[in-house]
Amino acid sequence: MDDTFKPTDIKCLPGSFSSAWQSPSNIAIVKYWGKLPGQLPANPSLSLTLEKCHTETRLEMSRRDTAKEGFDVKIYFGGQEKPSFAPKIEKFFSRIEPYAPYLKDYCFTVRTDNTFPHSSGIASSASGMSALALCLTDFERTCGQTTAGQDFSRRASFYARLGSGSASRSIYGCAAVWGKTPAVENSSDLYAVPVPYDSVHPVFRNMCDTVLLIESGSKSVSSTEGHALMDGHPFARQRFVQAGNNVEALAAILREGDTEAFGHMAEAEALTLHAMMMTGEPYYILFKPFTITAIQAIWAYRRDTGAQVYFTLDAGANVHILYPEAEKDKIRDFIEKTLSPACGNCGFIHDNAGTGPGKLD
Amino acid sequence: MDDTFKPTDIKCLPGSFSSAWQSPSNIAIVKYWGKLPGQLPANPSLSLTLEKCHTETRLEMSRRDTAKEGFDVKIYFGGQEKPSFAPKIEKFFSRIEPYAPYLKDYCFTVRTDNTFPHSSGIASSASGMSALALCLTDFERTCGQTTAGQDFSRRASFYARLGSGSASRSIYGCAAVWGKTPAVENSSDLYAVPVPYDSVHPVFRNMCDTVLLIESGSKSVSSTEGHALMDGHPFARQRFVQAGNNVEALAAILREGDTEAFGHMAEAEALTLHAMMMTGEPYYILFKPFTITAIQAIWAYRRDTGAQVYFTLDAGANVHILYPEAEKDKIRDFIEKTLSPACGNCGFIHDNAGTGPGKLD
Repeated sequence: MDDTFKPTDIKCLPGSFSSAWQSPSNIAIVKYWGKLPGQLPANPSLSLTLEKCHTETRLEMSRRDTAKEGFDVKIYFGGQEKPSFAPKIEKFFSRIEPYAPYLKDYCFTVRTDNTFPHSSGIASSASGMSALALCLTDFERTCGQTTAGQDFSRRASFYARLGSGSASRSIYGCAAVWGKTPAVENSSDLYAVPVPYDSVHPVFRNMCDTVLLIESGSKSVSSTEGHALMDGHPFARQRFVQAGNNVEALAAILREGDTEAFGHMAEAEALTLHAMMMTGEPYYILFKPFTITAIQAIWAYRRDTGAQVYFTLDAGANVHILYPEAEKDKIRDFIEKTLSPACGNCGFIHDNAGTGPGKLD
Repeated sequence: MDDTFKPTDIKCLPGSFSSAWQSPSNIAIVKYWGKLPGQLPANPSLSLTLEKCHTETRLEMSRRDTAKEGFDVKIYFGGQEKPSFAPKIEKFFSRIEPYAPYLKDYCFTVRTDNTFPHSSGIASSASGMSALALCLTDFERTCGQTTAGQDFSRRASFYARLGSGSASRSIYGCAAVWGKTPAVENSSDLYAVPVPYDSVHPVFRNMCDTVLLIESGSKSVSSTEGHALMDGHPFARQRFVQAGNNVEALAAILREGDTEAFGHMAEAEALTLHAMMMTGEPYYILFKPFTITAIQAIWAYRRDTGAQVYFTLDAGANVHILYPEAEKDKIRDFIEKTLSPACGNCGFIHDNAGTGPGKLD
């Protein structure tokens, strides 16, 4: 148990409660890959928070009549009950229960929906888990639950992290860091903290990210399995050191507004993430052929036009195309007319760095 | 100067000399990637020698009338004079001159040809440099040049290595090791040695390798540049240790005839080689989209049929498909009917482990 987040007594549990939040996905520039026990990161990571790719979650809680074993959770996704999603929520609840001792006192109904297409290969765990964490933290705030520092976002991030590591960063707008790093004050392995807004150069505050939807359906290797393969990985120790250094370098790049250095970092980190998959035991590849097509096309376009356009990848085949707002018209034209057709007319979502989660109604 | 190969006096230089050799390409299972100064390998490597992909080289030498600066070399490729190839030969000559002090006493005409298509992305440096090294060693033998150990192949491999690292392994049939390793007696960083034929299980002695021709034209990053990027590479030290261990493990696998372990090693090494490129500074990718298509198709076919079929890659986009002779009909059918069409009806060359170079008359 992390003492910072140990629960205080909630004097009066309400009969029912409802809260709804929208919370965004995020795109890591310096990647989190490799876990320590207890859902702690093997290295710090730094992401931009997205705006349009987000989850909307409504949580309804009502007092349970009788004490039973386990949690009582019903989950609806896009209006349909999804019993298959329940085990993930139950696992999340069991992880946070030491900090949220009221969980077995309630029946939960979770209604959730994403703004991005289902099975499009966009990780919904970051937006989904952060939205749910915000609802629960909202409940605690309503009940007068207090924590050290009284920081609502920090507690929500702490909960989100226990659901999905990268979800911890979705609690904040603009840019966030998860994992202890000298680059950002008060950073922690337990929760994410924002990169202070005034230490992010304006060019990055609304950085564009067009997600090229190359993947659909489920991945051949889940991120959970992938993280596990960093245990005993031949290059793990050097990689973790590198990522720590990269977070420090990126914090300076964000301050200075150096888009070229930012793009170089984003691409190098993306290729390193996938190189770790290719060199693990067992080895695997999450690239699809069109991932290579897109990367080569972006490199060719940049070489030919001098445009500020870069890519990054998550642990999947989709390509995130990063470019400053000032280049928007030109780059979107390239994406729509050249890049998407080259990738079999794959779909895309134009997104950008956003302001973080928000409470609904 | 490596004393082992220092020249002895050649008493009588003939007025003219001619020699012709054919020498094969080879496919590394444990890869050489990263050079120490003096064309020495940062780690040992182990390859199978190919049969059909080879170079035929005829060397004609005649005494020079007058002493001039530099070497006098004319090179013909496929019957056409190729002045553009001369600098590579001259560089090679300047490297071996301390061991071959007669080089400036002759005019050289090199007529060379490959059995595989030009610009098909098959490295011709291994077969080309080894064939030329054999011609020169042949000259020395004719003239009574002696070297420590009197080993013709070893001297040819030493020369070949100074032309192109991987060429050193093409001097021997079946399987060869370049670089000091406890796995093979008398192995050396200066030249390759054969993996003793009776310590190679029969299944590997004629192992099939179908080269899928995905690349054409020149590569975006040359192997010379690629090797250089291992200097200061974040994962270099661990990689070199790993390769050393892999050569030892592979020697045992070859002895025992474990095709599955062989295939796993071949694939892991291929992906690690490309991962090193992706994680260097600067990073780059030599995969083409069809490289991914082919790899995924091979994995799917293996999963579906249980066939012993594996891939490896050189420093390029072409996919080498490895399978035992016993699976030949089935796998070649798959390659011709399914795999090649999936890769845009790319060409392929059916090859197999062979018996090494041979003198032509």
